[in-house]
Amino acid sequence: MKEVRNNARELMKGYCKVCPVCNGNACVGEVPGMGGLGTGASFKNNVKALEALKLNMRTIHEFSEPDTSVNVMGIKLDIPVLAAPIGGVEFNMGGKISELDYITSKLKGCKAKGIIGCTGDGVPPFIHESGFSAIKDVEGHGIPFIKPWEDKELYEKLHKAEETGCKIIGMDIDAAGLITLKKMGRPVTPKCMRKLREIIGSVKADFIIKGIMTPDEARMAIDAGAKGIVVSNHGGRVLDSCPGTAEVLFEISRAVAGQCSVMVDGGIRTGIDVLKMLALGADAVMIGRPFSIASVGGLQDGVEKYIDQLKAELTQAMVLTGTEKASFVDIRVLYR
Amino acid sequence: MKEVRNNARELMKGYCKVCPVCNGNACVGEVPGMGGLGTGASFKNNVKALEALKLNMRTIHEFSEPDTSVNVMGIKLDIPVLAAPIGGVEFNMGGKISELDYITSKLKGCKAKGIIGCTGDGVPPFIHESGFSAIKDVEGHGIPFIKPWEDKELYEKLHKAEETGCKIIGMDIDAAGLITLKKMGRPVTPKCMRKLREIIGSVKADFIIKGIMTPDEARMAIDAGAKGIVVSNHGGRVLDSCPGTAEVLFEISRAVAGQCSVMVDGGIRTGIDVLKMLALGADAVMIGRPFSIASVGGLQDGVEKYIDQLKAELTQAMVLTGTEKASFVDIRVLYR
Amino acid sequence: MKEVRNNARELMKGYCKVCPVCNGNACVGEVPGMGGLGTGASFKNNVKALEALKLNMRTIHEFSEPDTSVNVMGIKLDIPVLAAPIGGVEFNMGGKISELDYITSKLKGCKAKGIIGCTGDGVPPFIHESGFSAIKDVEGHGIPFIKPWEDKELYEKLHKAEETGCKIIGMDIDAAGLITLKKMGRPVTPKCMRKLREIIGSVKADFIIKGIMTPDEARMAIDAGAKGIVVSNHGGRVLDSCPGTAEVLFEISRAVAGQCSVMVDGGIRTGIDVLKMLALGADAVMIGRPFSIASVGGLQDGVEKYIDQLKAELTQAMVLTGTEKASFVDIRVLYR
Amino acid sequence: MKEVRNNARELMKGYCKVCPVCNGNACVGEVPGMGGLGTGASFKNNVKALEALKLNMRTIHEFSEPDTSVNVMGIKLDIPVLAAPIGGVEFNMGGKISELDYITSKLKGCKAKGIIGCTGDGVPPFIHESGFSAIKDVEGHGIPFIKPWEDKELYEKLHKAEETGCKIIGMDIDAAGLITLKKMGRPVTPKCMRKLREIIGSVKADFIIKGIMTPDEARMAIDAGAKGIVVSNHGGRVLDSCPGTAEVLFEISRAVAGQCSVMVDGGIRTGIDVLKMLALGADAVMIGRPFSIASVGGLQDGVEKYIDQLKAELTQAMVLTGTEKASFVDIRVLYR
Repeated sequence: MKEVRNNARELMKGYCKVCPVCNGNACVGEVPGMGGLGTGASFKNNVKALEALKLNMRTIHEFSEPDTSVNVMGIKLDIPVLAAPIGGVEFNMGGKISELDYITSKLKGCKAKGIIGCTGDGVPPFIHESGFSAIKDVEGHGIPFIKPWEDKELYEKLHKAEETGCKIIGMDIDAAGLITLKKMGRPVTPKCMRKLREIIGSVKADFIIKGIMTPDEARMAIDAGAKGIVVSNHGGRVLDSCPGTAEVLFEISRAVAGQCSVMVDGGIRTGIDVLKMLALGADAVMIGRPFSIASVGGLQDGVEKYIDQLKAELTQAMVLTGTEKASFVDIRVLYR
Repeated sequence: MKEVRNNARELMKGYCKVCPVCNGNACVGEVPGMGGLGTGASFKNNVKALEALKLNMRTIHEFSEPDTSVNVMGIKLDIPVLAAPIGGVEFNMGGKISELDYITSKLKGCKAKGIIGCTGDGVPPFIHESGFSAIKDVEGHGIPFIKPWEDKELYEKLHKAEETGCKIIGMDIDAAGLITLKKMGRPVTPKCMRKLREIIGSVKADFIIKGIMTPDEARMAIDAGAKGIVVSNHGGRVLDSCPGTAEVLFEISRAVAGQCSVMVDGGIRTGIDVLKMLALGADAVMIGRPFSIASVGGLQDGVEKYIDQLKAELTQAMVLTGTEKASFVDIRVLYR
Repeated sequence: MKEVRNNARELMKGYCKVCPVCNGNACVGEVPGMGGLGTGASFKNNVKALEALKLNMRTIHEFSEPDTSVNVMGIKLDIPVLAAPIGGVEFNMGGKISELDYITSKLKGCKAKGIIGCTGDGVPPFIHESGFSAIKDVEGHGIPFIKPWEDKELYEKLHKAEETGCKIIGMDIDAAGLITLKKMGRPVTPKCMRKLREIIGSVKADFIIKGIMTPDEARMAIDAGAKGIVVSNHGGRVLDSCPGTAEVLFEISRAVAGQCSVMVDGGIRTGIDVLKMLALGADAVMIGRPFSIASVGGLQDGVEKYIDQLKAELTQAMVLTGTEKASFVDIRVLYR
Repeated sequence: MKEVRNNARELMKGYCKVCPVCNGNACVGEVPGMGGLGTGASFKNNVKALEALKLNMRTIHEFSEPDTSVNVMGIKLDIPVLAAPIGGVEFNMGGKISELDYITSKLKGCKAKGIIGCTGDGVPPFIHESGFSAIKDVEGHGIPFIKPWEDKELYEKLHKAEETGCKIIGMDIDAAGLITLKKMGRPVTPKCMRKLREIIGSVKADFIIKGIMTPDEARMAIDAGAKGIVVSNHGGRVLDSCPGTAEVLFEISRAVAGQCSVMVDGGIRTGIDVLKMLALGADAVMIGRPFSIASVGGLQDGVEKYIDQLKAELTQAMVLTGTEKASFVDIRVLYR
């Protein structure tokens, strides 16, 4: 991983410093780029909220070979991790590798290691097109995310997304605040319940709503037909001053327990972080920036190495907290 | 705005560093100048109190074109923002532009963008004289603030202020602690209820009391006849160790709900900050230092650009928190 | 004051940096010297505890000429401040002025400005001898503090202290932990109630116990006959990890309200700090390091200038918090 | 001690910076080395948790010659301190002195000063072999700690450990997460209650379980036959994000009060820290890194000097908190 990271640091110069701890301090306000919007508080709060959680170490038990696998929305994952949808290599990551190489490496690395990757959307079109193409390349083993466009553009993209052979489609509804897109004549907007039902109903694949930060909207997403939600503040890139996702996750996961799959992203870097999120009620997590760094810095091999590292860390953390299965993590794993 | 700020940084050298985040750290104790008094704690607490507030992001709704306008004390504002009364370009801001250019640019920029600016007072007389002149120049579309002088000086100034054609007059009562003025034989003093009633009664315009930091004094201001109050610690320039205004605002606005207009200043920099203050109960906010920087750095054009930026930020924040109207912001917008 | 401080910075080189804010950070562990013991936490906690207190600004009242004077243990003080007992110019402050000049300047400056100074004790004997001599020089207008020596040394010193003409004598009982003195064959020790009664009973002057940090020992000091106590952790110089005195003062002053005079030292630098301590229940405060800096840097004149500054700051703080008299400060002056 | 530390700084270059305060900041992630695992949070939390505790100073009492000695598991200790088991001079401490010199110096220094040292275990075998040899060298006055190996290796080592003549044997059960050992074909694993009973039953010596971080596992250790426990997160070297031991100690010691000896390690540097841990319910403490530094930097003499320093600090802290005996420290010693 060290080599992958050094390589990424070189290739992403001016866009990402590949810091020892990826915490949003070095890239405040860098949107486009890899940073958080404005003061970067939402990005930083994600990391701080995870840091604030402490683990109860326990070693009087028999779980020395814990089971890290989970089943989320019908997909078996070797570890409870998905690569989050991030695109725009050119303006966010320095553009030293192509969008297609970037996203294909990510999806292939994920598939090879028994997990699954998501693809992003945006302007220009080659972002989602590269994503769709990569998903076809791995026989549909990817999850395309579409932004909340206005009607026509949205339905066309959802239709094309389904043609990739994917079983799940997502929408990062929190992209609704991107005024830049509106100025380019490509409006993204919030969706009311009626619209959301219509959208989800128009798609055969199972649907994920990404960008949930309150229990009330989590329940609304289920009412609208979503089979999964992602607790997310969009990596701190749309609204400044959001709480960290680890602050809101527990209340949200409790509010919708058993009614849909709950995923979460935001500041997750290590297997330790994964375990903390599971303890707060997530079924699986999404990881963004670290996968981008791994893909830019080492292509498919980098992605695989990062997944290996996550699995080793998660396994060790499970052993040392007495956790038998990733599919059931007791809240007692957390200190207080 | 970047150019405006760079320009201001050059012109205000030695008085204001135009820091990336204007938080009172670089100018501790610089009074005169742009800093906070003593340890600068009151200035810094303003910024910290706002930073500590977090927003609930919500995007399942239909408010993609929120209404940012409000009506405060009979004045329609396109965004709920007033330019706060700050004068003394020469000893506070470096003196590279004239007091008159400074304040005229501010009032004109505000009027052009559908909001309103306030003018300051002090020693020497050209501070309030420039202010009065600028208000006449915009046909009375400004709010003159008078310091709490002793009787004769006070009434003379209030009388002249009325002659500008303004509809509202304010007094920054917290200037009462400025010992420097007393030493110059120009005493400013606290005002007891009897005096305050007399003062407010002597003026035909609606009256604003600025410098309220407790619920009890908010109620007293109303009893004395004020139609508006400004929750303010004078930008941290009169008493060290005050709480941030965002710490005390909620309790104050609740205490006087519906009985007067509640404004607040202190550390507000962005549209995000504006929304937070509205959620705590403010009808509108006053912004000080950033308007000074905009005016010194870009004259009327700089002021207008800053207002545009505030509106864009506020709009995006309203969309992403599901806020339909700036005239009614739910406390639920704040996390916890 | 600026010149006095610059001068002190020069003369105290290697012993005190005369920092912008005197907070114990630059002199961690410097005992001898001016720092706090060990990690310096007790010194730093004094400053932090005061910083954490916030003031309620109030300006709707009639107190524009507040009365700063108090009467403590029969002594009228123009401001509620005493110069704390600190000696050892040679090994603590760089030795560029003589012990006698140092302590005489302090006592004379205090007397000239209507307050009173205390003198210290220690090894070698010229510390207390200089102090006694200085007190005689100001016709008994000083308070000698004696360390808690074992019997013979203690009674001899108390006897000599009385001969200075002073009306009050103090003992900094918390010096009991100074192992260095014990190693020099000059043991200082804690005192049990029986001994303490004996000691206080042996002296005609009123007695102050300095070094109280808990309500129980405050009550014990009164039971033993003390007329005054000083809440103090000895400037952080005897026991690491003590709370700041402003943390414990309120509970202590409430426990002994009306039964003895309550003084406090620790981190007090400005008139703002003085007001905070009065609000927590102190009748007056002691200030240590700043008086040493003033005396070394400007002799009697430096001491007087510092007292003037304290009075101006305190007056302004009283005006802006609506405080009429320093002899009665309402807890409502503090925010929350 | 200063010379010992300077010497250690030279010899441990690249492995330990011998910082002014040993807090885990300069060695984040340095495992092997002297740092904490991952983000170093568990190491840092140990130090922070101790720093957060404050002491009530009390000097109205008669305890000027406190008794620092305790009796733990049948062993008389002149101060309530044991040298913790740390081995691996070559890869953790720079290898400038031999494993045998290192551990022998530690045990001899401890014995000479009336306390006792522990020995470590690991790969390669010369770590535990040096430890066993050193224990024999001090006629069994040492406590060997064995890692939680799988059956055969474990029982062989326990058997050899008993042959050293020691009266107590320990197991650092929290070493169970060391994946590196598993990869070397030398698996260490958690132990279920059945296994733990078997292990403890197989040994004639009294048994200590080290690595307890929760009340439930403390009770389980007693049920399994342990006569002592060590509250420990392994110096932050096995699981990131653990709370500091001083955070969990009180609840644990209360849960098992009177049923076994309670020891604790983690961030303890000074006699002040020792007193804090005793106040939270520990019968004695273990100190790790500082003993390693003392031994590498000054061999037996360095170890003895460090113990002298601890005793002087502890004595002074006991005098100044009114603590008569280290074997009974009142929780009232802690502020709040």
